Amino acid sequence: MVGNIAVTEKLSELIVNSRPEADPQVMAAARSGVLDYLTSTIAGGKDQEGNSLLELFSSDTYNPNLVKVIGINRYADFQHAALLNGYLGHVLDYDDVHSSSRGHPSTVILPALFAISKTKNVSALDFLAAYVIGVETMCRLGLAIGASHYESGWHNTATLGAIAATAACVRLLNLNSDAVNCALGLAAAQSSGLRAQFGSDGKPLQAGLAARTAVFTSMLTAKGFEAASNGLDGKTGFFAAYGSDKTIVSNLTKDWGNPWQIVDPGLWFKSYPCCSASHHAIDAVFALISEHQLHELENDQIANIEAIFPPGGDTALVVTNPQNGIEGKFSLEYVIATALIDGKVGIKQFSKQNIEPRVKTLMNRINRRYDEKIEPLSIAIPPGRFTIVTITLKNGATYSKRVDRPHGAAGDPLTIKELHRKFLDADTDGHFAHVPDLVSEMETHEDLVRLITSL
Amino acid sequence: MVGNIAVTEKLSELIVNSRPEADPQVMAAARSGVLDYLTSTIAGGKDQEGNSLLELFSSDTYNPNLVKVIGINRYADFQHAALLNGYLGHVLDYDDVHSSSRGHPSTVILPALFAISKTKNVSALDFLAAYVIGVETMCRLGLAIGASHYESGWHNTATLGAIAATAACVRLLNLNSDAVNCALGLAAAQSSGLRAQFGSDGKPLQAGLAARTAVFTSMLTAKGFEAASNGLDGKTGFFAAYGSDKTIVSNLTKDWGNPWQIVDPGLWFKSYPCCSASHHAIDAVFALISEHQLHELENDQIANIEAIFPPGGDTALVVTNPQNGIEGKFSLEYVIATALIDGKVGIKQFSKQNIEPRVKTLMNRINRRYDEKIEPLSIAIPPGRFTIVTITLKNGATYSKRVDRPHGAAGDPLTIKELHRKFLDADTDGHFAHVPDLVSEMETHEDLVRLITSL
Repeated sequence: MVGNIAVTEKLSELIVNSRPEADPQVMAAARSGVLDYLTSTIAGGKDQEGNSLLELFSSDTYNPNLVKVIGINRYADFQHAALLNGYLGHVLDYDDVHSSSRGHPSTVILPALFAISKTKNVSALDFLAAYVIGVETMCRLGLAIGASHYESGWHNTATLGAIAATAACVRLLNLNSDAVNCALGLAAAQSSGLRAQFGSDGKPLQAGLAARTAVFTSMLTAKGFEAASNGLDGKTGFFAAYGSDKTIVSNLTKDWGNPWQIVDPGLWFKSYPCCSASHHAIDAVFALISEHQLHELENDQIANIEAIFPPGGDTALVVTNPQNGIEGKFSLEYVIATALIDGKVGIKQFSKQNIEPRVKTLMNRINRRYDEKIEPLSIAIPPGRFTIVTITLKNGATYSKRVDRPHGAAGDPLTIKELHRKFLDADTDGHFAHVPDLVSEMETHEDLVRLITSL
Repeated sequence: MVGNIAVTEKLSELIVNSRPEADPQVMAAARSGVLDYLTSTIAGGKDQEGNSLLELFSSDTYNPNLVKVIGINRYADFQHAALLNGYLGHVLDYDDVHSSSRGHPSTVILPALFAISKTKNVSALDFLAAYVIGVETMCRLGLAIGASHYESGWHNTATLGAIAATAACVRLLNLNSDAVNCALGLAAAQSSGLRAQFGSDGKPLQAGLAARTAVFTSMLTAKGFEAASNGLDGKTGFFAAYGSDKTIVSNLTKDWGNPWQIVDPGLWFKSYPCCSASHHAIDAVFALISEHQLHELENDQIANIEAIFPPGGDTALVVTNPQNGIEGKFSLEYVIATALIDGKVGIKQFSKQNIEPRVKTLMNRINRRYDEKIEPLSIAIPPGRFTIVTITLKNGATYSKRVDRPHGAAGDPLTIKELHRKFLDADTDGHFAHVPDLVSEMETHEDLVRLITSL
């Protein structure tokens, strides 16, 4: 309870009555989020032939009751379109992250919104506003429930995402606050997802299931199904079960929209489709290339490369000797070598293709080292992290670069131009070249339908 | 971890390799469970016209890809048939309970099994064995996770039921232990349901959703989808997130099937379709009627009736002045008055009909009292509970009866004959008169299909 008002009720009022569409900066941030989600999803849809999830729950035959699976020629019912578009958005781990939520908001919220957008005569601006409300809900759930939720094994993307995406959907469907209150409780009662699935296909599946929960719950509530009100409150509600004694329930609604979480601290859009723990090193290599004209180097001029981390700073980079691009996503050695040789770290660099011999040769000259004496900067993202890359040439020359916060992270976001370039890199065959402009400009219901039907 | 073997792995081996079908007593207990679940579900299907859940996710048009919704003329896809049959099985709260699981096993496990039974050429005996494995899994999850799970707000029927029903389904589908290991982890990652929904339609919905999770997960795993193994273990697995420091993970597999939980302590089949906290009083009234020929009484011969509880023993019986049979489910006064007047407490007594004036007149003469000095017996179910009913006539005669464990509960189960009578009471129009014998005798695949298609 917050004062005498249950927090679920208070949240419902905010979901129904907030007007983020009035703020151009907020709407611009939402358009960037939509574009970046579509980038990740279109990239994720490549090479999915034979995936049992797609085979079971989608079809290559269109009928008007089905919704498009983004980026591939398949269709699914409302619920499973949300599931599959959530799965594909997260399958490469290329989608946005928000620090307040300790998870990936857009790959849960947007697939749910896309699935239900044709059912109502809503405008593209309504769609963007509902998305902002969803991100705000997810971030505030994260700020309320605290770090212990993630630490206990929960996968915030899925657990908090299910409730947040439901908030977005009921907002888009224009339900009243009593119905929203009930929908939030039902979504909380379906909240699930465990970090035990990290490193497996279960991880993106959990994002998709959370999106499905939102579609199921909002459809059911819109049809008049009634359930308990105030399902986040009390001794048998969401925070009691999923929280800890460090949970601060009032954070759910305190300073709501002031500023909007999608703007400040904002979504982190990834620059590279690989483990975020490797992004510092990649940024360092590109800085060295540009500052010292290293692209003119011949491969065999490099004597060795050293990467220095704080102790544990490379824990996620578990692969030292990858055999193909997919394994390379979690390899420091691969991303450094391929950045130097290709001058690019994009979708193509992480395909199923075997790694070229000249990349392997360079990988063998890379070493990792840990230095607990170097202080991380206060701007470091994640906190306490940095990477220093030092390249030594056979002629004795040495070039070194330190990165504490990769480009794209909060405080140093990707520019619109960079987001467009990222999209073009993912849209390898140019099928979706119209999408960036449409996302930047869409306003009406017709614009929204044009976007959805062209994905 | 149990010793050096992860507990998920150990559970998978038991699910795959156990042979409960060899024990006739176990199979008989399973047949009783199936019959009682069908009783509750057929009763639950009455008066459901206009229910938004049924309207959204089932259709009155048959096609061969759909599964029957039990008891009513509607059909749904595999997943939603499980959801709806789980919902209808639990909507009256008339379905079985198992003390080890602190929940209702059959209304989650059986709807999931029914939904997938046509897809494989499985026999009725395979079906019953899979059900026994599901009940065992759910009870052992309850014994492992401990009381704190329920106390923290979780709805065990749904949280543990989702994993247990998945265990039953993968057993029926004859998956190997690696696939089972993966399926258990995926089910755990979808485990959800909160007690905040108690008293609303969200409660039976949660049972249905758990059944849907089992169908979804087992279909996906059978199709080859791979996820993390050992999803119950470790710092980011099921027990870490849903348990507490009182969780004893080894209870999950210790003494598995020795004896089978479906036999000892066994399922509690409810004698009456109303709150179980009122069953002691109803049993007491029926004992008094039979011992003292009270059925020959005229209503106005009764001066007053007193019901004595331990302090808090009637907490669940929140309604003192019900207006109709549905409200009467949670009214001590209504069940005592209707037992005396109708001589019966069945489905008919809990309809939407308004309560008759003569029942109301008698209800007004009933009082509740609490006595902390009376010691509950060690056999009491639930522990610490009893009810003493004392009827005083206008002629001064006084009749008193104490009940500590209602008939039907573990240690005093309903007989087969009583289960058949309960079924006939639910099958008001006699459409399903063939079911009790078929459930008692079914053995082959053809028997099973005959049962499923006739529901």
